[in-house]
Amino acid sequence: MIKRIDLNCDLGEGYGAWSLSGGSEILPYISSVNVACGYHAGDPRTMRDMVEAAKQYGVTIGAHPSYPDRVGFGRRNMDLSMDEIMTDIWYQLGSLAAFCRLSGVPLVHVKPHGALYNRAMVDTMVATATAEAVWRYDSELILVAQPESKLLDAGTSLGLRMMREVFADRAYHRTGRLVSRSQLGAVIHDPSVVAARAVQMATTGRIQTVEGDWLDVPADTICVHGDTPAAVTLVAAIVTALKEAGVEIEALS
Amino acid sequence: MIKRIDLNCDLGEGYGAWSLSGGSEILPYISSVNVACGYHAGDPRTMRDMVEAAKQYGVTIGAHPSYPDRVGFGRRNMDLSMDEIMTDIWYQLGSLAAFCRLSGVPLVHVKPHGALYNRAMVDTMVATATAEAVWRYDSELILVAQPESKLLDAGTSLGLRMMREVFADRAYHRTGRLVSRSQLGAVIHDPSVVAARAVQMATTGRIQTVEGDWLDVPADTICVHGDTPAAVTLVAAIVTALKEAGVEIEALS
Amino acid sequence: MIKRIDLNCDLGEGYGAWSLSGGSEILPYISSVNVACGYHAGDPRTMRDMVEAAKQYGVTIGAHPSYPDRVGFGRRNMDLSMDEIMTDIWYQLGSLAAFCRLSGVPLVHVKPHGALYNRAMVDTMVATATAEAVWRYDSELILVAQPESKLLDAGTSLGLRMMREVFADRAYHRTGRLVSRSQLGAVIHDPSVVAARAVQMATTGRIQTVEGDWLDVPADTICVHGDTPAAVTLVAAIVTALKEAGVEIEALS
Amino acid sequence: MIKRIDLNCDLGEGYGAWSLSGGSEILPYISSVNVACGYHAGDPRTMRDMVEAAKQYGVTIGAHPSYPDRVGFGRRNMDLSMDEIMTDIWYQLGSLAAFCRLSGVPLVHVKPHGALYNRAMVDTMVATATAEAVWRYDSELILVAQPESKLLDAGTSLGLRMMREVFADRAYHRTGRLVSRSQLGAVIHDPSVVAARAVQMATTGRIQTVEGDWLDVPADTICVHGDTPAAVTLVAAIVTALKEAGVEIEALS
Repeated sequence: MIKRIDLNCDLGEGYGAWSLSGGSEILPYISSVNVACGYHAGDPRTMRDMVEAAKQYGVTIGAHPSYPDRVGFGRRNMDLSMDEIMTDIWYQLGSLAAFCRLSGVPLVHVKPHGALYNRAMVDTMVATATAEAVWRYDSELILVAQPESKLLDAGTSLGLRMMREVFADRAYHRTGRLVSRSQLGAVIHDPSVVAARAVQMATTGRIQTVEGDWLDVPADTICVHGDTPAAVTLVAAIVTALKEAGVEIEALS
Repeated sequence: MIKRIDLNCDLGEGYGAWSLSGGSEILPYISSVNVACGYHAGDPRTMRDMVEAAKQYGVTIGAHPSYPDRVGFGRRNMDLSMDEIMTDIWYQLGSLAAFCRLSGVPLVHVKPHGALYNRAMVDTMVATATAEAVWRYDSELILVAQPESKLLDAGTSLGLRMMREVFADRAYHRTGRLVSRSQLGAVIHDPSVVAARAVQMATTGRIQTVEGDWLDVPADTICVHGDTPAAVTLVAAIVTALKEAGVEIEALS
Repeated sequence: MIKRIDLNCDLGEGYGAWSLSGGSEILPYISSVNVACGYHAGDPRTMRDMVEAAKQYGVTIGAHPSYPDRVGFGRRNMDLSMDEIMTDIWYQLGSLAAFCRLSGVPLVHVKPHGALYNRAMVDTMVATATAEAVWRYDSELILVAQPESKLLDAGTSLGLRMMREVFADRAYHRTGRLVSRSQLGAVIHDPSVVAARAVQMATTGRIQTVEGDWLDVPADTICVHGDTPAAVTLVAAIVTALKEAGVEIEALS
Repeated sequence: MIKRIDLNCDLGEGYGAWSLSGGSEILPYISSVNVACGYHAGDPRTMRDMVEAAKQYGVTIGAHPSYPDRVGFGRRNMDLSMDEIMTDIWYQLGSLAAFCRLSGVPLVHVKPHGALYNRAMVDTMVATATAEAVWRYDSELILVAQPESKLLDAGTSLGLRMMREVFADRAYHRTGRLVSRSQLGAVIHDPSVVAARAVQMATTGRIQTVEGDWLDVPADTICVHGDTPAAVTLVAAIVTALKEAGVEIEALS
């Protein structure tokens, strides 16, 4: 049986004169892109350009909705009500859907951004609000969540198709939690190690934790970064290793 | 032959804790509502609520896109490029379309707001950008424009269905231009006079100008206001007069 | 000995075309005004106008800084770092200080707004950040805080002059906490009762709690509202009662 | 007599996670910095950091106020009233003044940004609003303007100290106008040519135009850029050439 895995990347994270994440350099390597929708990043020109670029490379498009916090880049937790989370997500899905419609490509998935994503992993209300917003907007959308998370549970309960996301360049605890970035060794920089972990995740669904145990990490998509030349090089190494291991890189459809 | 006219009103012009235009008081009287999409007014909760309220009253929903100028309420002219105008309109159409989708009602028309609307009447580039943005997003949408305007020409050229908007409470020059608000008599406040003018416009397509001439004002829709109790009373008077004159109040479909 | 108390009110809470709290109707009755600085409300015109109006009525001016959350009116908790809280407060103090400078009136006090204020009552980090931001900007400023709060402690530790704020129209628990607005009886509406409580607070520094005990509420300032005609009537009743009881209404200076 | 010239640079033009113009690399070479105040760029952390960095390098600090247009980076013309321009400038001056106060350094000058600056050169109302806003806020502030501009006239009429700004890397018409960037040769890239022009401007107050004439360009300050490594190299070349020609680089004080 041929193994398949998706590679996803957050892009379109500029605003007006500013840019942050990389542009089209990473697109040849990935299968899914999460496009910022204006709340943490992403003005209309940036959104349109990213949708067009993704279309040219055959990369599947998803929305990357955020808390309304541009100056904090959506990375700061905010106490929003369930209704506020849902309506904010709808506004963002709609705005990106406009550019998908204009480019004639489908909006396929949703991956919450930053603090909203992190909180949806552990907070039942935020997870429920997020999953229900996606499901009510379009029950055919795929929702991205980490394995063993409240968001995975909430989306699964509603019958949404879920994409379980793992990180090849992050160390895991035996609990399934990521090692905090504040700890040494939390982020793995050696391309050969990261590539080997990606292959292991894609082919065995397991990864060794910092405690030494083997953890099940059922992986549908691996998150990669495209914001520096080194990041692009790292992704190229992952892609080469996956292909050599016989893994196809492909978005869910 | 039965005469028909649409009555349209700008609503949903609040933002967060703030509100401006009236709410559902005006909805029983009108046939079309122009909903603010976040650029001059309109947060996601306000947009959702207005779409739901319009649905309950059977009022046809349109988008009311603006220049990006919340503090100026979209009333200040801005020099945007054709690409900026188009992408800004797409973003706003998409965001409102999300709430229409969730409520199961169609997005039927587009009426630009404030300075964007005024400039699209007289500036060929702005008119073309606006009409083309609407047409490329959905060529079935109806675009609102004043008679004898650049926007009417631009939309007509593209084959868009156009809705010609007139003002029963505003004085006209023989050129077809509205008398400037800075001049005495520019705005008519007497409900019986406004109602009579509305009937005249709807049944004869003509109106007497401040110069005394009769002007052709081919009218598909009359713009009304709902932001004060007096405004609602005025609209009620218009509706009563139109019905007594045998004019049906109905949105284009 | 003559008793003195300050009456403070949050004003200038509009934004562009929108207004929320009342305007100058309440100014004849109060001694201090807390002016929104742009983060939850308050554009430059609104700020300038409120400073000018306060000057005309001889009302002392303070800043009302907030979390950066205009759509949420600063009422939603946000996880900001100490550095973010401090720099955000400085930005807001500076912007209001500009209008004070132009009007030739001093900036006298600071009262945090909404979620920032509430959190500074109970969260040591937020309290410390707020107090230190005020102290480093101008150690002569007066900081408003509720009795028995982390913010009162933090400001006192730094040597700031503190103004203890009480609410004549809110029920208190014996712990000194306000009864939650979600509970029946949390807000007192009867003007004669509110006025009597204001007098009791100002003259005895004590108030009866919902549990029936007497609570010490050392009061330097009573918070009043000016956003409705009924609110203005209530403040007028408080002022009359205080004067009859021989209490002078006066800001700290 | 020793010649003196100021070198000024726009900095602090980031926002939250985004940065645009260079940081402290350019500070060792320049004598004045124009700090963005939040309207086109510049969040409170960025503003504080830039003021602190400028202080460390002994660089004089000025405000760089803009139209309220973050997504357009203040580069798009907006039709603001005189009152809107003045109050918007006051808000921005105050916010930057807060960080100057905290760092114990003076706010010395004001240079409008982008479309506001360009329009103030040719539009009497905008020029008057800008100059009067600066003068009323602090009549000791220095205002930057191009020679032969409406802004220079407006500031001079009010008795403001003016700093006349020239561009060593831009071609001039005999009228004193800059050659439009859309024309070939409008921007000069050769460091040796730019350095030679800077020396000529500083020592003779004249420059050769594209028409071949010699133009008087009375220069108090030369505008330089710091947003790329090449830009820093260019400034270093200018500084070396000026020093070799015996010109001192120094801000007005």
